[in-house]
This record gives sequence, structure tokens and C-alpha cells, in this order.
Amino acid sequence: MARIVMKFGGTSVADLEHIRNVARRVRREVEAGHQVVVTVSAMAGETNKLVGWVKDAAALADLREYDAVVSSGENVTAGLLALVLQADGVAARSWQGWQIPVVTDAAHGSARIQRIETDELERRLAEGQVAVIAGFQGLEPERNRITTLGRGGTDTSGVALAAALGAERCDIYTDVDGVYTSDPRIVAKARKLEKVTYEEMLEMASLGAKVLQTRSVEMAMKHRVRVQVRSSFSDAPGTLVVDEDEILEQAVVSGVTYSRDEAKITLMGVPDRPGFAASIFGPLAEAAINVDMIVQSVSGDGERTDMTFTVTKHDLARAVELLSGRQADLAFGELRQDSDVVKVSVIGVGMRSHAGVAQKMFKTLADKGINIQVISTSEIKVSVLISEAYTELALRSLHTAYGLDAV
Amino acid sequence: MARIVMKFGGTSVADLEHIRNVARRVRREVEAGHQVVVTVSAMAGETNKLVGWVKDAAALADLREYDAVVSSGENVTAGLLALVLQADGVAARSWQGWQIPVVTDAAHGSARIQRIETDELERRLAEGQVAVIAGFQGLEPERNRITTLGRGGTDTSGVALAAALGAERCDIYTDVDGVYTSDPRIVAKARKLEKVTYEEMLEMASLGAKVLQTRSVEMAMKHRVRVQVRSSFSDAPGTLVVDEDEILEQAVVSGVTYSRDEAKITLMGVPDRPGFAASIFGPLAEAAINVDMIVQSVSGDGERTDMTFTVTKHDLARAVELLSGRQADLAFGELRQDSDVVKVSVIGVGMRSHAGVAQKMFKTLADKGINIQVISTSEIKVSVLISEAYTELALRSLHTAYGLDAV
Repeated sequence: MARIVMKFGGTSVADLEHIRNVARRVRREVEAGHQVVVTVSAMAGETNKLVGWVKDAAALADLREYDAVVSSGENVTAGLLALVLQADGVAARSWQGWQIPVVTDAAHGSARIQRIETDELERRLAEGQVAVIAGFQGLEPERNRITTLGRGGTDTSGVALAAALGAERCDIYTDVDGVYTSDPRIVAKARKLEKVTYEEMLEMASLGAKVLQTRSVEMAMKHRVRVQVRSSFSDAPGTLVVDEDEILEQAVVSGVTYSRDEAKITLMGVPDRPGFAASIFGPLAEAAINVDMIVQSVSGDGERTDMTFTVTKHDLARAVELLSGRQADLAFGELRQDSDVVKVSVIGVGMRSHAGVAQKMFKTLADKGINIQVISTSEIKVSVLISEAYTELALRSLHTAYGLDAV
Repeated sequence: MARIVMKFGGTSVADLEHIRNVARRVRREVEAGHQVVVTVSAMAGETNKLVGWVKDAAALADLREYDAVVSSGENVTAGLLALVLQADGVAARSWQGWQIPVVTDAAHGSARIQRIETDELERRLAEGQVAVIAGFQGLEPERNRITTLGRGGTDTSGVALAAALGAERCDIYTDVDGVYTSDPRIVAKARKLEKVTYEEMLEMASLGAKVLQTRSVEMAMKHRVRVQVRSSFSDAPGTLVVDEDEILEQAVVSGVTYSRDEAKITLMGVPDRPGFAASIFGPLAEAAINVDMIVQSVSGDGERTDMTFTVTKHDLARAVELLSGRQADLAFGELRQDSDVVKVSVIGVGMRSHAGVAQKMFKTLADKGINIQVISTSEIKVSVLISEAYTELALRSLHTAYGLDAV
């Protein structure tokens, strides 16, 4: 007998027929003798509808009200799943975030879970009752207002419940059957990974693979929760996200990801003196504009140079407006922008012990005539910014070069 | 400065455009210097959708889960209205039942409000903040699970809030502009009543006029809450539901109502002996089948008689099945059923002091050749069961006979 947490996303609970399918999976685990906690998202499309209404209602929404509105979709699916389970003869009740409670900080709209009071859940699990928990939501520290955990937050609900309850595993049921070496829609030879490390999954999540909410992976890594990503539409084994030492033979590179959500800004002819970078990035940070990759050209004359960096496409207009308004102050010559760019990354914990990974990336791209505009690296990944037109070519070439192709 | 409660039904908050209209009305009251509490229903159609899902999910739904699911629609409209008010510059926050809390009994699906903890609401009203409260919902005594108050329950939320907060008035905004002497869709000469007594409103609500939830009128009567029924789509004055002594000149009859939700059962040749009625109505009561009108013929021979009574159309099949199964036991000859019937009632507190009201009803119907099948009376109403085909003729004739026609 084990204790497991099962998380089902919006496409898995899209309507009653899908919810019945979820109930069958839950029942199977109960019949296998497990203690089961389920957490569910809102029906597919529901949260988008609610977010749309909030945006229409008020341009600058009070995030406490945003949370009150958008959390309602999960209450519906949790209640319906409890009902379907009961009709199937499985003891179950639904729980909203405030009923447990799942206590978060007060950062409405993207709150962080601080603590889950598990006493009553423990008691009922021991009695064989399934707990069906509305995902994505919590209760702020003063315990009166509802919070939400940010888009994809039900992943984090699942992992946090698994950590708080000491569950053996958190199964994330979604519409893909696991984590792939690359996007199978682009790279036909992409393979499903049997296992991937927390660190790699974290890079993949933040570098464009939409399988798991980044924060849920951070939490899984911190609390060493074994996470399995699998499909709610098939019985194929999924991908286990685990500690590095659980993976016997680690590939140097585990995946090739991309993100089209990047835009490049180049400031031409900026003064080549200390403090200039701070004078640019300070105001951007104050405006909550996240800067990702940064490169500064080596100046020819020691007086003027170029500064290139990336922001999300969403922030591009605001960033350009902010910088153009200070052109005189900042004393740069010209601002160039380009949103036809893509960030391609190779990821693998094996890089720590293998040299030449970045070199192979640069050579592979050069061989295909792909120009690299910006480079950034971390301990377990190398990212390059290239022209968006080369996305598919770059992904396929790198996938082959690192020996990831399915045989 | 007064304190008022405003209640808006589903058609009044059907979408964001309607919610903006509601916000304008709320703002007008705030600008007039009033302290304002608003309670809202779910968007029109939303609760029906949720109830439909619950019924599809489980034939015999756990009413605690039913409540968890169907209460979610009000959370959405309360949050959206708070946002629109804020965008209009009106300080506001939304409240869900558990956040106040509105404490009810544990009768899930049709809970009764026991107590509303108003301390925090009072504090914020004093600061000029509008409280936007999700109607229809509460929290059971153990304070963990959500309850709902039954269909139309937001009327009761509004009246209960007005009573708990000592509000000057509870304005019920709906899609009709007041209480009419009869259904204007049938009786073209129906007039809007300027005032109506609690007792009359209570009879009208339970006899088919769908303007207010019956329970809300009972509560208004008990706590002497002045209720105004008015349209959210016009500025015409509505109908005030008030104490009898607030109405200077009371008409003998205030309204003529009808209910098509009746079905007649006749048991032929039942034994004319003490205890027989109990042997029929006991089992029906145990099966939660409500019996409304009852008539027993005078027996010719003192041994056998006929017993006629009405149940709701919804309960007819169950009642017939239950009684037929006991035909031998109960020793009646034949069971006849008829759903082509309508109950027509005339209502007025003036009846107490005026004789001849019932007689005028019987004569008016007789003059039109309408046969009366069953009669029941109370202190302030007379109801008759007639063939459904005569509904319109009966309503119009009675409306004229009692001098209710608009001039």
C-alpha cells in the first residue's frame, strides 16, 4: 500500500465524460490498495474564460478579486469528480483550498504555498476516503481571502500535497504521455524520456517545454518528490522526474528545447563605461520587465559599443518605449528591435562532466549556415538566440548531433 | 444617509454589460450617501448548467458536493461586480458565504440561515466600502462545508442581510418591475401594486407568482424588513412589500394567481371510516410527497366515499405508484389521475374583514361555465382547482370581478 497524489489538468477534466475517465483511473489506484489524493484543474477553457471576464471588468484588476473569480472553475471539477467517484462506489469528498486549508503567502495571482494543514486529510485517508482537492488555489495568511498559484498552478498543488503528505509519488496526468527529448511536432525522431532529473526538468520547463509549471519542479526538487508525467488518455508509462542519482547512465544532453517568446533589443553606440549596464537594466527591472540573455560587443575604440539583450515578446513594446524615452539620458545612438528570433537550448546534467557540448552546438549550427546572435549558458544548458526561420532546422540538427534520435 | 441592501438576480447580471449596469445603480446609491450591501445571483443560466452537470454526475447526488459545485456561479458574479465597481472608483470587495460567514443549518441544498456575523461588514460599511456578497450560499455549523439556500435563495440572502444589518430596505432587482395584480402575460389589464403586505406576498409566492422566493418573504415578515421589488432595467418605482398597517386603504383582493404545477388524484370508493385519511397521507408524507388541496365527498350510504387531493406534477408518478402498490391494503376501488388542472387563487388581507369574497369567486366562475373541482381556503386566500383549459378565462373574469382591472 502506498500513498499517491494524482493531478489532472484541464484537458483531462474537459467535460463529464472525461471526468468519468479520471474517476476510473482513481478507482483503479484505490482498488490496488493505495491511499489516493487527487487534485484537479478547471475544465479546459474555463480559466481562460474567467480571466477574460476579469480583464474586461477592470483593466487594472484587484488581484484579490481576480483570485476570487478565477479559482471557481476548480471548485466545479473537484465537486463533480467527488460525485462521480461516489456514484462509482468510491468514498470521496471535495476540498477547496480554504477548507483544508492550503495556506499561501499573500501574493495574489501567483501565490506560493507556505503550509498545508493535513490533519483532517490524514484522518480521512486512513479511513480509505479519496480526497479530491481543487488545484491552483489557496488561502492567504489572514485566512479570509482566496489566492491562486499562477497559470499551471495545479501542478504545484499536486507536488505540494505530495510533499506535505509524504506521498510516494505525484502523478501528473496531462495530454502528452511524458517528457520528450524535443518537441515531437517538430522533431519527428524525438524520444520519450524514461527518466529526467529535477535540474533538467527545471531548465526544460523554464526554457519553453510546457509540460510542468516551473514552480512545481522547484518544489519537487526541494522536497525530493518523485513526479511522473503521464497521459490521462493512455496507459503507456510516462516520464519520471527524479533525483540525479536515480539515473544510472546519464546522457550528456537530455533534451533540445526552444522558446519563441523572445524578442531582441540592441542599443547601438552606447558609452563603454562602468555603470552603463546598470543604468539600462535598473529601470527595466523597476518596470517589472525581465531581461533574459545579455551580450555586450567588444568595443573597437574603447569609447562606444553595442548592447544586445532579450525580453519576452509581451514586454517588448513597453521596454522599447521606456528606453526610447530616455535616449538622451542614456546617450545611445540607435535602438533596434527584432521579434523574429527564437531561443534554442540544449540541456543535460551530463554537461557538468563533459567538455565540448557548447562547441558541438556552435559547430552544428554553423554547418547549417545558422547565425548565432546571442549566447547564454548555465551549468547544465547552453542557449542561443537565432533567427526564428531556422527553428525547425536547428532543433532537428541538434537532436541528431547529440545522438538523441530514436532508432 | 441610509443603509440599503440591493439584490440582483441572474438576468440582471447575465454578462459583463449587465454587470456594468448593476454597478451604475450601486454607484448611484453610494453617491446619494447610502451605505450599500449588494448580493448577486449567478449569471442567468449558469446555475442550471451546474445543476445539470451534478445530475449527470450522480443520480443520487451527495448534497454537500451539489452545494460545492452549484455555489460557484455566485462567486464569479460577486468578484466581477466588485472589479467593475472598483474600476468605476467605488471602494468594494466581494464576499463569499464562508468569508463573512453566513452560518446556516446543515440542510444542504435548501439550508436555512441561522446567523450572519456582521462585525467586519459593519466596519467596512462605516468606511464607505460596498460589500458585494455572493448570494444563495452559506456555511454549515461546523464551518467547513458550503451550503446553498435552494433555488431563488439569493432573495433570502438579501433579506437576511438586511435583517442582520438593520438595513432600511432590501431592494430586489429583477426582470419584472414589481408585483402585479395578476400575470400581465395573461391578464392585459393587470396593474402593478404600489404596496403589498407580507402575508399577501407570501401567499402569492407560494401560489405561483415567481417574483420572490417564499422563504425570503417569510423572513422579511418575521424581521419586518421592508422589501422593494423593482426592475434592474428601468427606473420605474417598484412594489413595496410592507406591514399591513403601512397600507392605508387595503383592497379586499390584491391579486389573482395561478399555478399549473398541480395534479389531481382521486381514490374512488374508499372506506368512510376514521383513520382512513391518515392511512393515505402518512405514506405520502414519508415519501416526501407534499399534498396540497384535499376534499372528501360526503358519502351516500355512509360506507364508501371518494377522496380527492392534489400533489405537484413532479410528484404525480411517484404518488400514483405508491398508492397503487397499496390498493389492497387501503381498500379503495379505483385511482384516477388528472394533470390537466390549474389552481387559481384570489388573495387579499381585506378578506378578513369582508364577507362574500369566496362566494363572488364561485359565482364568477359559474357564470363562465367553469366547473370547480376542489376548493381550499385560508384566512387571506381562496383557491380553486379547475380544468387547465379555463386558466386564462378564469384569471381575466376574476380580475374584472374584483375590480382589479387597470382603468
